[in-house]
Amino acid sequence: MVMSANQNRAVVLVSGGLDSATTLAMAQSQGFEPYAISFDYGQRHRFELEAARRVCKSVGVQRHVMFSLDLRAFGGSALTDVDLSVPKQRTDEEMEAGIPITYVPARNTIFLSIAMGWAETLGAFDLFIGVNAIDYSGYPDCRPEFITAFMNLANLATKAGVEAAGSWRIHTPLISLSKAEIIRQGTELGVDFGLTHSCYDPGVEGVSCGVCDSCQLRLKGFADAGMTDPLHYASERTVD
Amino acid sequence: MVMSANQNRAVVLVSGGLDSATTLAMAQSQGFEPYAISFDYGQRHRFELEAARRVCKSVGVQRHVMFSLDLRAFGGSALTDVDLSVPKQRTDEEMEAGIPITYVPARNTIFLSIAMGWAETLGAFDLFIGVNAIDYSGYPDCRPEFITAFMNLANLATKAGVEAAGSWRIHTPLISLSKAEIIRQGTELGVDFGLTHSCYDPGVEGVSCGVCDSCQLRLKGFADAGMTDPLHYASERTVD
Repeated sequence: MVMSANQNRAVVLVSGGLDSATTLAMAQSQGFEPYAISFDYGQRHRFELEAARRVCKSVGVQRHVMFSLDLRAFGGSALTDVDLSVPKQRTDEEMEAGIPITYVPARNTIFLSIAMGWAETLGAFDLFIGVNAIDYSGYPDCRPEFITAFMNLANLATKAGVEAAGSWRIHTPLISLSKAEIIRQGTELGVDFGLTHSCYDPGVEGVSCGVCDSCQLRLKGFADAGMTDPLHYASERTVD
Repeated sequence: MVMSANQNRAVVLVSGGLDSATTLAMAQSQGFEPYAISFDYGQRHRFELEAARRVCKSVGVQRHVMFSLDLRAFGGSALTDVDLSVPKQRTDEEMEAGIPITYVPARNTIFLSIAMGWAETLGAFDLFIGVNAIDYSGYPDCRPEFITAFMNLANLATKAGVEAAGSWRIHTPLISLSKAEIIRQGTELGVDFGLTHSCYDPGVEGVSCGVCDSCQLRLKGFADAGMTDPLHYASERTVD
């Protein structure tokens, strides 16, 4: 095991969406060598993994791990349980009214834990995750207080944290950006958003529905940024 | 998703070792309905999963999930990397000298995160894990401060924690017991230690080596308790 700190290495969580593609570009622009990890967890929008591959390939990561774990074993989310429907055409008020059924129990905790384990074997102490607390979906594990608690845990949970106390850094460069700002900054860094995928309920060949929460947030972001989303959509709700 | 609290339900991590078998019996004796989870993570002592099955069957859990995730993707531990050897015949001084090569990066964080996700879908807020900080192996993620940090994280990470703040409880009934005390208390609760498995480097048909750290701790525990281990061993270091 490489236990010396490799200060340029960072593990970046890459879902294939526009947030994580921008996060990856930001990690590179800050001088990190990115090691990317994506999770095949039984999500119905498994097409996003193709997007993750394309995004990682386009920017040239050191290594891209596709990690499998089947969260369908538990269900409890519209993203992993085929008996639950992905909400469509929700109004802004509905979207702001609480934690939605697309919440996957413990997802970011599980993903960050696995990323931390990999980082430790790489001698890295830096994790990047594209969570966002502004134009976000109401998920509890996207909030700054969650990230701070995870960082505290990392320093107690690992050999690396014990031997070099307080070394772990969880980078959340998008946490206080609006979706429009993310899109603008990603564009400046050269992110090709045409490679990304955001839809929770894609149709054949991964075509985005345009009306799930994730599509709506994305489309509103491009509209607010005064830009056009390069993706094609099956249908589009009129965005205010 | 069942979001009402099911106060009798608890998720218990069951490795198949004597500690987790005793923890499971303790959860039951405290009135919990146990939901057991075991992890097939690419461990070289995969034989322990057979023991986990036997233990869960013997006490009658509500459900036993065998969760697969391949930590060999990263390596970095003698338990998951076939290029690293499991230490044998280490003296007490060597065992106390630091975090050993059998440490699996982030293991308990990953396992507790997944258990937490399952518990949330069950409407449960109670997790049981058989970590031990006395006769332990020097792993950072077996210490009380790690458990406290994980509990703080759970209350921020989950929908259940947000909606019923401070509800998560991580039970560690073994944390301040010696191995001998664990064996005595397990025996009182009727645990059949002949069903369990502790060896890190078992031979054919799962026969325990008798000389890895885990076997040594186990054998010393039985000796200190004035009892005989029902398991057979390939060889045994003389225990003081």
